[in-house]
Amino acid sequence: MEIGLYGLGRMGGNMARRLARGGARVLACNRSFEVTEQIAAEEVNVVACRSLDDMIAALKPPRVVWLMLPAGAATEAALAELAGKLAPGDMVVDGANGYYKEAQRRAADLAGKQLAFADVGVSGGIWGLANGYCLMAGGEAEAVARIEPFLKLLAPAPERGWLHAGPAGSGHFVKMIHNGIEYGMMQAFAEGFALMQAKGEFDLDLAAIAELWRHSSVVRSWLLDLTADFLKEDQGLDAILPFVADSGEGRWTALESIEQGVPTPVMTLALMNRFDSQGKADFGNKLLAMMRKGFGGHALKG
Amino acid sequence: MEIGLYGLGRMGGNMARRLARGGARVLACNRSFEVTEQIAAEEVNVVACRSLDDMIAALKPPRVVWLMLPAGAATEAALAELAGKLAPGDMVVDGANGYYKEAQRRAADLAGKQLAFADVGVSGGIWGLANGYCLMAGGEAEAVARIEPFLKLLAPAPERGWLHAGPAGSGHFVKMIHNGIEYGMMQAFAEGFALMQAKGEFDLDLAAIAELWRHSSVVRSWLLDLTADFLKEDQGLDAILPFVADSGEGRWTALESIEQGVPTPVMTLALMNRFDSQGKADFGNKLLAMMRKGFGGHALKG
Amino acid sequence: MEIGLYGLGRMGGNMARRLARGGARVLACNRSFEVTEQIAAEEVNVVACRSLDDMIAALKPPRVVWLMLPAGAATEAALAELAGKLAPGDMVVDGANGYYKEAQRRAADLAGKQLAFADVGVSGGIWGLANGYCLMAGGEAEAVARIEPFLKLLAPAPERGWLHAGPAGSGHFVKMIHNGIEYGMMQAFAEGFALMQAKGEFDLDLAAIAELWRHSSVVRSWLLDLTADFLKEDQGLDAILPFVADSGEGRWTALESIEQGVPTPVMTLALMNRFDSQGKADFGNKLLAMMRKGFGGHALKG
Amino acid sequence: MEIGLYGLGRMGGNMARRLARGGARVLACNRSFEVTEQIAAEEVNVVACRSLDDMIAALKPPRVVWLMLPAGAATEAALAELAGKLAPGDMVVDGANGYYKEAQRRAADLAGKQLAFADVGVSGGIWGLANGYCLMAGGEAEAVARIEPFLKLLAPAPERGWLHAGPAGSGHFVKMIHNGIEYGMMQAFAEGFALMQAKGEFDLDLAAIAELWRHSSVVRSWLLDLTADFLKEDQGLDAILPFVADSGEGRWTALESIEQGVPTPVMTLALMNRFDSQGKADFGNKLLAMMRKGFGGHALKG
Repeated sequence: MEIGLYGLGRMGGNMARRLARGGARVLACNRSFEVTEQIAAEEVNVVACRSLDDMIAALKPPRVVWLMLPAGAATEAALAELAGKLAPGDMVVDGANGYYKEAQRRAADLAGKQLAFADVGVSGGIWGLANGYCLMAGGEAEAVARIEPFLKLLAPAPERGWLHAGPAGSGHFVKMIHNGIEYGMMQAFAEGFALMQAKGEFDLDLAAIAELWRHSSVVRSWLLDLTADFLKEDQGLDAILPFVADSGEGRWTALESIEQGVPTPVMTLALMNRFDSQGKADFGNKLLAMMRKGFGGHALKG
Repeated sequence: MEIGLYGLGRMGGNMARRLARGGARVLACNRSFEVTEQIAAEEVNVVACRSLDDMIAALKPPRVVWLMLPAGAATEAALAELAGKLAPGDMVVDGANGYYKEAQRRAADLAGKQLAFADVGVSGGIWGLANGYCLMAGGEAEAVARIEPFLKLLAPAPERGWLHAGPAGSGHFVKMIHNGIEYGMMQAFAEGFALMQAKGEFDLDLAAIAELWRHSSVVRSWLLDLTADFLKEDQGLDAILPFVADSGEGRWTALESIEQGVPTPVMTLALMNRFDSQGKADFGNKLLAMMRKGFGGHALKG
Repeated sequence: MEIGLYGLGRMGGNMARRLARGGARVLACNRSFEVTEQIAAEEVNVVACRSLDDMIAALKPPRVVWLMLPAGAATEAALAELAGKLAPGDMVVDGANGYYKEAQRRAADLAGKQLAFADVGVSGGIWGLANGYCLMAGGEAEAVARIEPFLKLLAPAPERGWLHAGPAGSGHFVKMIHNGIEYGMMQAFAEGFALMQAKGEFDLDLAAIAELWRHSSVVRSWLLDLTADFLKEDQGLDAILPFVADSGEGRWTALESIEQGVPTPVMTLALMNRFDSQGKADFGNKLLAMMRKGFGGHALKG
Repeated sequence: MEIGLYGLGRMGGNMARRLARGGARVLACNRSFEVTEQIAAEEVNVVACRSLDDMIAALKPPRVVWLMLPAGAATEAALAELAGKLAPGDMVVDGANGYYKEAQRRAADLAGKQLAFADVGVSGGIWGLANGYCLMAGGEAEAVARIEPFLKLLAPAPERGWLHAGPAGSGHFVKMIHNGIEYGMMQAFAEGFALMQAKGEFDLDLAAIAELWRHSSVVRSWLLDLTADFLKEDQGLDAILPFVADSGEGRWTALESIEQGVPTPVMTLALMNRFDSQGKADFGNKLLAMMRKGFGGHALKG
C-alpha cells in the first residue's frame, strides 16, 4: 500500500504521519525539503522525495499521487506538471479546499490523458492526526475504490468518517457546503458570546458558560469544545484583533446559493460579517455618515 | 392663529420660522434663550418666551403647545411639566421622533387631565424650511382638526404633505416606519456606491453616476439627490470616519418587526450594519479569529 | 431531599422522573391530574398532588417549588398563586423558557414577600431524561445553593452540566442566548442541506452525508446527530410542511441585540426566516410584484 | 442620423419610437414581424426590416446596430450573426441587462473583427418613452461618441440622463449596480408597508400614506410614486400572488459583492427574499421543522 503525497503543510504533514502510522508507505514531497526530511526522520514509513520527478520515479505504477496544496494556483500548477509526467492508468487525488467546478474540469482533462482523478474534501483541521479526518470523495466508483485503503486509514475508523459522495466534483462540493455551515455555526456562537460579554450587569463567566453548554445542551458541538478551550485561557480576548479572514469555501457556498436561487441568509451573512471585519464596509459607511449629514444636519464623527 | 413651540433645534427652529412666515403667531421657547431671541429678532411673528411658564401665560386658552424636543427624557420632562401647568381644554403636540407606544401612553395620561394630544411625525430635515415638511399626525379627529391650520403651513402646500393617520400613536408609528424604510434605502445606496468605488478597473466617476441616475432612472429619489450633491464636492470621502450613528426610530422598527413576526431583513440588517460601524461586532470577531486558530491553526492577524 | 414540581409536560414530566430516580422525593402537580397519576404510578419517589394547595400542604417548610410551565400567562398565574400561599422562607424556581426581564421583576416581587427565587434555564429537550439536562441558574448565591442538590440530579453528572450564572435573571438570559445560538446553528444546517438537495446533478445521499459529518468533521454537533437520525428515516421530507414555529427565546435574543446595539445578523435572520416560513412575508412580496409590474410592465404570476 | 434597432419588446419598441420622434431614421427589426410593421405604421421615421440581413442591407456603412434583446442566449445569437455579417468599421450596441463580464468578452471578440462595440445600460422601464431613459454607456471613447446623438435623443434631455461611464463592460456594470440598489429600495418599501398593513389596531390607509410621503419626506422617490399609484387602485392586494421574480442583475450584483469581498447585506437579502417568495426555502424549512421535533418533541404543522 503505497501513495505519493505532495504538500506537507498543516493538513498534509499530519495526513502523511497518519497514513504512515497506519501502515501505508508514503512517498512525501513538499516545496521546502526541510519539512519533508523532518517528517521522514520521524516516521518510519515516510520516504522523503526532493521533487515530483523523484516521487514519480519512486512510485510503482499504477501510481496514486495525493495533492494537499493550497487551492488555486499551487494546485493548478502541480496538476499540470503531473498531467505531463504521470503514465496512463495513474491517479491523482486533489485534497485541497478547491472549487468543485474546477474539480469537474480537471477530472475531464485528466480523463483525456487516461489518468484517474478523485476530489476529496478533508475536514478535521490540526486535530485530524489524533482524531482522524472526515473525508468526502468525488469521482468514478473505480477511482474512489482505489483510494479506499487510504481513506480508511485517514478516517477516524475504517468503517466511518469517509464517503464516496458521487461523481467528480461532488467531494469538493460537499466539503464546500460543510464549510458554509461551519461559517454559520461559528457566527452564531460569536454573536451569542458577544451578547453575553456586553451584558455587564450580569458579569457572566463566558468560559464557564462555554464549558457548561458542552454537557447535554442543544448547542453542544466540536466548535463549542474548542471555544471552551480558548476561553479558559483568556476570556477577555483583549490582545486579539477583530479581523476574520475568509477563504474560497465560504464565498463559493454563497455563489452556489445565488446560482441555484436557494436562499442562504445565515451562511451569506456570516461571510459578509467577515468582509466587514476586514474593513470592507468602510466606504459605504462613510457614505451613510455623509447622507445623514446631508438630510438631517447630523454632525460627522471624528 | 397662535401656537406655542418648545424646542428650537435643527427641526424646531426652522418650523418656527416656517409657521411665522405663513402667518401664525409663534410663542417660542428653548432651553437656551439666546436661540429664541435670535429667531424672534429675525421673524416678525415669533415671540420669544423665557420659559414654559412665560409661554403658557402668553397663550390665550384654549392653548396649543407643540414640543420639538429630543425623544425620551427631554420630551418626558416637558410633558410632565405641561401636564401640571396647562388648563383643561388645552392641547399638547409631540413632534419628536418618539416611540409610538409612549405616545399611546401619553395620550391616555393627558386625557385623564382633559388635555388633548397629538403625536406628529415630522420628516424633511434641514430642508423643511424651504421645501415644507411631511407630517404624519396621530390622535383623535377633534385634536388633529385643531392643529390642521398649522399642519397646512408646515406642509409643502395646504392640500398635501400632511395626513391624519389614525388614533394616538399612529403618527409616530408611521414616522417610525418611514425612517425604517429610509435606513434600508440609505444602505442600498451605500452598498451600490461601495461596489463601484472598489471596482478599480473601471475608474468610475461616482459623482457623475449619482448625478446621472437622478434623471429618469428607477432609483431616482431625494436621497440620491443629496448623495449627488456631496459626491460632487468630494467623492473620495477620505476625511470621513466610517462611523454611522443610529437612533431610536431604526431600532423601534426592528423591534416592531420582531413583535409582529413580520420579516424585515433589509431594515434590520441596515440597522445592524450601523452597529457594526460603531465597533460593536468586535468581540464577536475576535472570537471568530480565535475559533479559526483553534480548529485550523490559522494565524491571528496583528 | 424534597421538592414540589408543578408542570409535567414534555420537560417537567421527565424532570420529575429523573429527580425521583436520583433519590429526590417529588411532590408533583399538573393541570391535568391524569398525567400526575401516571407518573406517580411509575415512579416510586413521585407523589401525586391534585393542586398547588395539596402540594404546599404536603411539603415540609422551608419549601422549594419548581415551576415547569409555559412562559408567560401560565407561569405568571402560578407565581401569583404561590406568592399568596407560600410562607416566608419558601422558594420558587422558574424553569420555563421565560424572558429574563420577567425573572428580574419576579425576583424583586417575591423578595418583598421573603420568598427566595431562582430562574433556571433548562436545555436538553426530550433527551434530558436519559442524558441529563444542561442547567443555567440565576439568583442569589444562597437561593441557588438551596437547589444545588436538585441541579446535580438533573444534570448529566453532579459536577458538570449546571452553573450558577449570576444574579436573578441571568439564568434565563443565558438560556435565551443559548437558544439564539441554536436558531443560528439550525438555520446553517438547513441551508447547507437545502443546497445539497437542490444539486440534482450530484444525486447526493443526504442521510449518508449527515452521518459522515458526525465523525471528525468541524460541524459535528448534537443537532447534526439528530439530523442524521431523521434523514435516515426519510430524506425527501415530502410529507413535512415547510412551516417553522418560533418561540419567545429567539425573539428576545433579537430584541437584546437591538437594545444592546450589538449586531447579530445570523441569529436575527434565522428568526426572520421562520417568520417567512409562516407566510408573514406575503404582503410585502405582493407589493414587490406590483412594483415590478409598475415600472417594468412585468407580468404578475398567477 | 440612422440606426438599426433589433428587438422591439417592452423596452426596444418604445426606444424605437422615441428615437424616431426625435428625428432619427430607425431601421427596426424584431423576431415577430407584426410588431415591427405596427410600429413602422405608426412612426414615420421607423422602417420595418424583416431580418437582420434586410436591416444590414438597408443601413449605410459605417452602420450602428443596437440590440435590445433579452440578455443571454438571444443576445449571444444575434451578436454571433452580426459578427459574421457586418463590415469592418460597423458598430454594435448591446442595450440588454447583460452581465458586464460578457460585455468585456464581446468587446474583445468584436474588436478582433474591427467592429466597434458599446454596452449601454438602459433604465426607465415602460415610462421611458414619455420621460426619457437613463443611459450608462461603456466602451472606447470613439465608439461611445458615435452613438452620442442617439443617447441624447433617448435621454430625458440632450445634456443629462446619459453618461460615458468608462471602458467596455462599465455600462452594464453601472446598470447592474443600479438594479442592485433598486432591489434594496424595493425591499425596504415592501417591508415598511407590510409592517403598516399588519398593524391592525391603527387601521392605516396605505394608499394615503404612500401619497403623503411623496411630498417632502426623506423617502420620496420614483418607486414610491409608482407604489402610491397602484395602492390607490387596490391596497389590499388580495388577488396578487406573493411571488417575486428575480433577474440576472440582482444575482450578478450579489456575485460581485462576494468576488470583491465588499459586504452588501441589504442587496443580497433583498435578492434572497425573492428566492424565498419562489418557494426555494421550502426544503430547508422542512428540515428545521424536523429538527425542532427531533430535540424538543414539537409537533409538526400539517
